[in-house]
Amino acid sequence: MKLSISKLTCATLFAALVFISFTNARADEGMWLFEAPPKQQVKERYNFDMTDSWLEHLRLSSVRFGRGGSASFVSANGLIMTNHHVGAGYLQMHSTPENDMLANGFYAKTLADELPCKGLECITLYEVVDVTEQLAAATKGLAADDAAKVRKTKIAEIEKENADKKNLHCEVVTLFQGGKYHLYCYKKYTDVRLVWAPEQNIASFGGDPDNYEYPRYCVDCSLFRAYENGKPAVVKHYLKWATGGVTDGELVFVAGHPGTTNRAYTKEHLIYLRDVHFPERLERMYRREVIYSVFANRNLENARRVGHDLDVVQNYRKRAIGQIDGLQTPSLWNGKITAASVASTRPEAIIAKACERSAPIYKPHIYYEGGEAFNSQTFRFARQILRLADELEKPNANRLKEYRDSGIDFVKQTLLNEAPIYEDVEVLKLTDSLTMLEEYVYGELILDANKKLNDKPLGELIPPELQKESPKELAIRLVRGSKLRDVAVRKALIDGGKKAVDASTDPMLLFAKAVDERSRKLREIYENEYDSPTTAAYAELAKERFEQLGTNVYPDATFTLRLSYGAVKGYKEDDGTQVKPVTNIAGMFERAETMKYREPFNPPKSWLDNKSKLNQNCAFNLVSTNDIIGGNSGSPMVNAKGEVVGLVFDGNIYSLSNNFVYSETQSRCVSVHVDVILESLRKIYNAERIVEELVK
Amino acid sequence: MKLSISKLTCATLFAALVFISFTNARADEGMWLFEAPPKQQVKERYNFDMTDSWLEHLRLSSVRFGRGGSASFVSANGLIMTNHHVGAGYLQMHSTPENDMLANGFYAKTLADELPCKGLECITLYEVVDVTEQLAAATKGLAADDAAKVRKTKIAEIEKENADKKNLHCEVVTLFQGGKYHLYCYKKYTDVRLVWAPEQNIASFGGDPDNYEYPRYCVDCSLFRAYENGKPAVVKHYLKWATGGVTDGELVFVAGHPGTTNRAYTKEHLIYLRDVHFPERLERMYRREVIYSVFANRNLENARRVGHDLDVVQNYRKRAIGQIDGLQTPSLWNGKITAASVASTRPEAIIAKACERSAPIYKPHIYYEGGEAFNSQTFRFARQILRLADELEKPNANRLKEYRDSGIDFVKQTLLNEAPIYEDVEVLKLTDSLTMLEEYVYGELILDANKKLNDKPLGELIPPELQKESPKELAIRLVRGSKLRDVAVRKALIDGGKKAVDASTDPMLLFAKAVDERSRKLREIYENEYDSPTTAAYAELAKERFEQLGTNVYPDATFTLRLSYGAVKGYKEDDGTQVKPVTNIAGMFERAETMKYREPFNPPKSWLDNKSKLNQNCAFNLVSTNDIIGGNSGSPMVNAKGEVVGLVFDGNIYSLSNNFVYSETQSRCVSVHVDVILESLRKIYNAERIVEELVK
Repeated sequence: MKLSISKLTCATLFAALVFISFTNARADEGMWLFEAPPKQQVKERYNFDMTDSWLEHLRLSSVRFGRGGSASFVSANGLIMTNHHVGAGYLQMHSTPENDMLANGFYAKTLADELPCKGLECITLYEVVDVTEQLAAATKGLAADDAAKVRKTKIAEIEKENADKKNLHCEVVTLFQGGKYHLYCYKKYTDVRLVWAPEQNIASFGGDPDNYEYPRYCVDCSLFRAYENGKPAVVKHYLKWATGGVTDGELVFVAGHPGTTNRAYTKEHLIYLRDVHFPERLERMYRREVIYSVFANRNLENARRVGHDLDVVQNYRKRAIGQIDGLQTPSLWNGKITAASVASTRPEAIIAKACERSAPIYKPHIYYEGGEAFNSQTFRFARQILRLADELEKPNANRLKEYRDSGIDFVKQTLLNEAPIYEDVEVLKLTDSLTMLEEYVYGELILDANKKLNDKPLGELIPPELQKESPKELAIRLVRGSKLRDVAVRKALIDGGKKAVDASTDPMLLFAKAVDERSRKLREIYENEYDSPTTAAYAELAKERFEQLGTNVYPDATFTLRLSYGAVKGYKEDDGTQVKPVTNIAGMFERAETMKYREPFNPPKSWLDNKSKLNQNCAFNLVSTNDIIGGNSGSPMVNAKGEVVGLVFDGNIYSLSNNFVYSETQSRCVSVHVDVILESLRKIYNAERIVEELVK
Repeated sequence: MKLSISKLTCATLFAALVFISFTNARADEGMWLFEAPPKQQVKERYNFDMTDSWLEHLRLSSVRFGRGGSASFVSANGLIMTNHHVGAGYLQMHSTPENDMLANGFYAKTLADELPCKGLECITLYEVVDVTEQLAAATKGLAADDAAKVRKTKIAEIEKENADKKNLHCEVVTLFQGGKYHLYCYKKYTDVRLVWAPEQNIASFGGDPDNYEYPRYCVDCSLFRAYENGKPAVVKHYLKWATGGVTDGELVFVAGHPGTTNRAYTKEHLIYLRDVHFPERLERMYRREVIYSVFANRNLENARRVGHDLDVVQNYRKRAIGQIDGLQTPSLWNGKITAASVASTRPEAIIAKACERSAPIYKPHIYYEGGEAFNSQTFRFARQILRLADELEKPNANRLKEYRDSGIDFVKQTLLNEAPIYEDVEVLKLTDSLTMLEEYVYGELILDANKKLNDKPLGELIPPELQKESPKELAIRLVRGSKLRDVAVRKALIDGGKKAVDASTDPMLLFAKAVDERSRKLREIYENEYDSPTTAAYAELAKERFEQLGTNVYPDATFTLRLSYGAVKGYKEDDGTQVKPVTNIAGMFERAETMKYREPFNPPKSWLDNKSKLNQNCAFNLVSTNDIIGGNSGSPMVNAKGEVVGLVFDGNIYSLSNNFVYSETQSRCVSVHVDVILESLRKIYNAERIVEELVK
């Protein structure tokens, strides 16, 4: 539904100021390493001593769930708790035309009913070793290129050696853009089964309208179980279920796997995001949201066909609005300007130059190489088939990176995906994106008829077909004429290689071919002007900063385990409304009533039928000041005793703008309170065997 | 609801190619003058002779309704038929908190129950006199400026003289951009009463999703009655109700009042619309539709508050998409290029230059002087109060045109309007529009930091406040701090004049003052660079063309009575579906069923309750090839016998793009079939007295 996995799971560009905090740690800021925890800060602010054993217990109870979420062990028998939206893919996996598990929920009445989830892996961080010195020794005196090669080899060695010795899954993690290298050794669970999930309508009650908002009423929770040797895994470390609730102002911790941050971004880079990146994204999301909505509103089948696209667009739109709001807030920039003074100016200048140079080709690059001007699955297939054939002719090292040997399987898997593709949706999307391309290019040309893009006339970005056909006419011809929506046709082209591709007269393939040279050229320019220089400059910057500041700061998020501290705390809305930190069941029913039970404010039948049984005062969701980001979805929230009190599932709208500069004022982490999980397991889902397991 | 009056009533920029048709009149094109009817074309295409008496009867049965709609007499006792959306304002006028007449409909059971509509005037065209020669004689030998003055005086003389003599309302109409001047003399009805209107849910069944689409199922109809001396007006000419339906391919005529066309637009001007005008509008509409929808979806009160704004935006968006589709269709341009050859090049060059010069200031002008960057009623009040005070200090002739003596009453009336204004909606709109301004200006500056706008740094378009506050912070401060939403405060400022305004510390007034100099300057530039030269050039162009082509063409629409001919005819959708020309009652119920009776696909209770009584095969809506445009809403459609067979209420989506070049292929006029009106009057509304009047 509206709360897709991408929400707190796959983080995109985030940037915030971190280097303020260490000098003046008044805020509950930071995604701290467990091996370098903020003991001093927590002591100073909350007078609480995080002992090593307390930290170890929390670390070993924390779980990284699949490819993009967080979770935790909540029973001695391997019960794992995560978000409904994180586990949604496995509900879909087990759904049938007769039983849509996303809509209907699921409960395994007995252990035997728990459903295996193919491909799902969960890992727990057992051991951390600092291997920085070891790597430094191996690369000492080498030039950068050689050092990188040697480092890569050495890392593989260290990983293998430790994995064999410890019988754990081992990975070397690059921290502080190369300031530190830590070896992370994980225990891996490969047999994980679905135990319980509520209905979508209560998991993401309020849908898009309430997404990133508060007060909230979501049971965004699902339960899985780790198995070993066909039996429930016996785990020593798991989080005890808190039964005493939380109090306003109470200290709480979040242990989870924030995905990506770019908090070291320079001021010029943030300006680039503000004035180039987000405006382009928003413009595109606004128009697509309208185009998809209009199509969806015409009939219910349309709505079904375009539903997922619409969800994705709405989530991006909401996030981008929050982020641009932060970037357009001058008061948030003051700190950034101060912070810049601790950094050297050389890499900053490189970054500023990279932004300046790539700004004019940002749209052409994203429209062509990003494929946004040719927005359709049929085009994406055509391009992948074309490039696969072309790239496989080259030596591995010379190929575009996604077509190197290591990535070929993934490309083929994508190409052979059998998910349905709808001709009408394809025409809709392609028409709109070609229209957008014309608006952009002609809009530029009317201001400057001779406008150039890297010494070529800008007008060349209009495919020649559009001189004769309208965007709609071209889209109809390409989409309807193409056979690439047939998986057998795609397979034949993949198997036939370059010869088959060259011989094909599929109109979409011909179109992809026609725009490919220009597209590759734009990619090359963008990589040279932007990607490469900024990556190198940030590594340099990080090194300098790290030398000045040491480890008393936290590194950018890397989808590895982090600890965040904070307090249960309400906040004031822009309109002055004071928002209380904890909602309750009565509030959910009130909201449904006020919204006349309209979708997405219609609780499932099970909740309506059992309303009278429920304790109306039971806590539902809660907000706290913890510093979180995409990837934290499913993170456990614990109290000072280490008991689980909440399940992180969202940030409020202010937390989006605070990604650039953390501010406690309004930014909040949003969690499911454990009480509502227990109350509903008991009184709605009659899941007594699970309840006993949780609270025994 | 979704089908606001603005739809076919207040036309905006429309452009199409007209000068093809006269040489090669194969298409059902044209909005012809009754005094120069397309007799030859209709004879050639349909073998029908339009006699003078036939034309006179249709003309005298046609009605211009209020300020922006069309209508017709349909009984000897002055019964007037128009669209529900044209008469909607009068339903609102009579609504009370207890009875929302838009939602519930209305039926006057007896003559005495018919409701007077204050301010509503209906007129019928009685007489047309060509006064071109008379005016030419009066202005012979004079320079342009002097000629204009003399012409104005002479026109006033002619109007007064004829009005007195004929006891009619007389107006001289400028046709062919000054090629012809016709005196139109109208009979005016000032006592017009509401007789019947169905519920909104059936009048605009399908709402925005079905707006400009087909098949359609709308009873977009309402009935009024003209009175004279307190009694129903006795009219000699009225349209007989057709009871035989229509057949596929049947010749039909539309008599109505198309608002504005600019069909003489040059190729360069159309490019300007395509690349500057519509992209800006669409970008703005897309973002507002999303912003308003998100706000509306949060709760029902929000939805109510922003509902009208959302309707307006959706209507503009749908129209702009259709129009840009046409402009981006190369095949539609071929004719235009040919057509250009009949015109002289001098005025065309002037127009091209005007477009080129004004393109760079298009956005700054619309953002500042158009007020779109400060989108809020509070700002609009502030600016009007400020300018009213400033302008009244100047001699009448030196003022901005809307503040000249003739316009002052209207400005004051606007300022004293007591319609509710919601603080939260104001903050929402102003925040978004200031955000848009920043995106635009900063987006330009990152590409060229020294960018100038008429020799001033472009960056000056960012109000200084936004250096310290975010768009949201500024919007909150200005809106909440302003007292201008209180009508008494506005009145005091108007009454207090410049002194009071100068002394005011209202934050919105101060803000309006701060941006006013820049805004006025942009207006001046835009008027000098674009408005003045294009107006003069088109007059010149029209004169030349008129001299070459004579009156065997129709002039651009002028909201005066026109005749259009065409045929009842289906068409093929882009996806190849053949659309039949006439829908029926069964189809409406099927659509409602398929859409699960969700808003706006929920017919009113009266229709659901009486479903079994209705003839399911009864015709509902129909499409025809007639050439219509905004202002035609409510036009009668008649058959060759002059009987009314339909009531025009919309064009399909293709008719929007065909505004630029008329094409019969897909463009259709959409009408309510008279059968469904009669069927529902009989079986749902039990309006027997009206039925008898219509069919006797």
